[in-house]
Amino acid sequence: MVNVMSSRKPGLKDLKLAARRIEGHVIRTPVMTSSSIDLMTGTRLFFKCENFQRVGAFKFRGATNTVLSLTEDEIMNGVATHSSGNHAQALALAARNRGVPAYIVMPMNSPRVKVDAVRGYGASITFCQPTLGSRESTLEEVVSATGAYFIHPYDDPRIIAGQGTAALELLDDAGNLDIVMAPVGGGGLISGTAIGTKGVSPRTLVIAAEPQNADDAFRSFRSGTLIRSSDPDTIADGLRTSLSDLTFSIIREHVDDIVTVSEAGIIKAMRLVWERMKIIIEPSSAVPLGALLENKLDVSNKRVGIILSGGNVDLDRLPWMNGRR
Amino acid sequence: MVNVMSSRKPGLKDLKLAARRIEGHVIRTPVMTSSSIDLMTGTRLFFKCENFQRVGAFKFRGATNTVLSLTEDEIMNGVATHSSGNHAQALALAARNRGVPAYIVMPMNSPRVKVDAVRGYGASITFCQPTLGSRESTLEEVVSATGAYFIHPYDDPRIIAGQGTAALELLDDAGNLDIVMAPVGGGGLISGTAIGTKGVSPRTLVIAAEPQNADDAFRSFRSGTLIRSSDPDTIADGLRTSLSDLTFSIIREHVDDIVTVSEAGIIKAMRLVWERMKIIIEPSSAVPLGALLENKLDVSNKRVGIILSGGNVDLDRLPWMNGRR
Repeated sequence: MVNVMSSRKPGLKDLKLAARRIEGHVIRTPVMTSSSIDLMTGTRLFFKCENFQRVGAFKFRGATNTVLSLTEDEIMNGVATHSSGNHAQALALAARNRGVPAYIVMPMNSPRVKVDAVRGYGASITFCQPTLGSRESTLEEVVSATGAYFIHPYDDPRIIAGQGTAALELLDDAGNLDIVMAPVGGGGLISGTAIGTKGVSPRTLVIAAEPQNADDAFRSFRSGTLIRSSDPDTIADGLRTSLSDLTFSIIREHVDDIVTVSEAGIIKAMRLVWERMKIIIEPSSAVPLGALLENKLDVSNKRVGIILSGGNVDLDRLPWMNGRR
Repeated sequence: MVNVMSSRKPGLKDLKLAARRIEGHVIRTPVMTSSSIDLMTGTRLFFKCENFQRVGAFKFRGATNTVLSLTEDEIMNGVATHSSGNHAQALALAARNRGVPAYIVMPMNSPRVKVDAVRGYGASITFCQPTLGSRESTLEEVVSATGAYFIHPYDDPRIIAGQGTAALELLDDAGNLDIVMAPVGGGGLISGTAIGTKGVSPRTLVIAAEPQNADDAFRSFRSGTLIRSSDPDTIADGLRTSLSDLTFSIIREHVDDIVTVSEAGIIKAMRLVWERMKIIIEPSSAVPLGALLENKLDVSNKRVGIILSGGNVDLDRLPWMNGRR
């Protein structure tokens, strides 16, 4: 399962190719603004609404770009991954759109709603123990049994190029931005965002935002050494993964800073967006705004783009409800 | 407090004047679509997102049109109304935008969040008992003490013309529609919607949707006699009011039919929009889609516009939670 492409960093050209490749497959999501949140933060915010993307998250961009990049030979036996989250749904739908099978390894404690969604896109699901070891060994079995092509959720230049297309659209629609922010987990989104932003507008600062409770990217960035997290406890369930060598290397090269935010700040920002903008975002999406509400960055009178990464939330268990976890 | 204008029915010309008058004050809200909800309903739906309107509801259109229509003499002592809902916020903001005071009579059991919002727009609040009698007598006292101009939430041609501008935008953006649907409570929105739709596209059917538990408009429409409801019990809190002579007369002239929906259907439709479209709508907004999910109307292969009336929801008390009311 060695992926020969994963050592190569993508550039702006790869993002532009990806944008052309996925056009018509992905939604060109709107950029929204909120005068009341602008007033609260003393800035002008431009929210790129990837919560409106197919499968409810930016992940569909990278998955689609990668699936469409594969040759007939590479993809003839389908694609496979392990994921309990948005990448699983994204790969399942991207595979269905190309007419090939998808094999998804999911921890047996995955939320029912996510399992149903993946199955709804026609993917085959293999359940595993909820540990990284079990995920990887189960995936290896599935791949060797099916011959499916393994697509990593972020440690892949084609995935990164696909995720970066959201930033290209944001810069296109919002115009001149002083800062672009995105959350960081495994680093696929922020890597693509940074490559796209610096490629199009070198003067624009790129700032990653991360939960304090899962601050491995922050500590890696500060120390210059890749530190991996182990099972961090944050409500931002999309950001519990660690950087790869590839995404860490891109972040060191193109990201200007990483800021962190408390769990309370994430929940406050999420609720604020729901209340004022009337759109549903998941906790991971609220991390950049949460950092602004906690004054982790000087944004006064700046034009700031924020990528809202997704909107997949269990509506029966909202973070401001009692007994939520 | 006799309003001399309320006997006059507005026409398409009044809606077009209103559209020009409120331009720049109101948000031109987007029209959104959902391929998964289209698949479920066998139709093509175009959702006019008034949940993204200022104050979170279409009510701001009518309030703004009316406030901007008043002469300096009429408005010199400010404006007044009684409302526990979106009209209160809408009038408060419209008055602030014109630089005149707003006096709002609110029942003392109004949700804290709504009281805070009205106060946040700088309005003076007078609390009353939660009965129609107390509302009206308290309002009369406020008006006689202040000289403020009373603006009814729906029994006013200027309000109706303002609300109708949403339908003009919907028809403009979505193009050729076979059916346009809106919820009906007091009838301001559906009256404006019907006048606008029939004026621009006479062949398009206009269908009102109403909760079964507050079906006074449905029964009035069927019987030809205005029937008033008294304190109906529905989760669609924006639709508990009764028609006025003016709105009933417009509905009889321009609305093709009224369909009803169960409480369960409203909640199901509301949750579906949250889950699939990732936008927040209030129960009243979900009434038309709820009726479609309950097959109250043949919409197969039709192009159907639906006005999502607002997005003001208490996020601590969602209808699918236990112990909600």
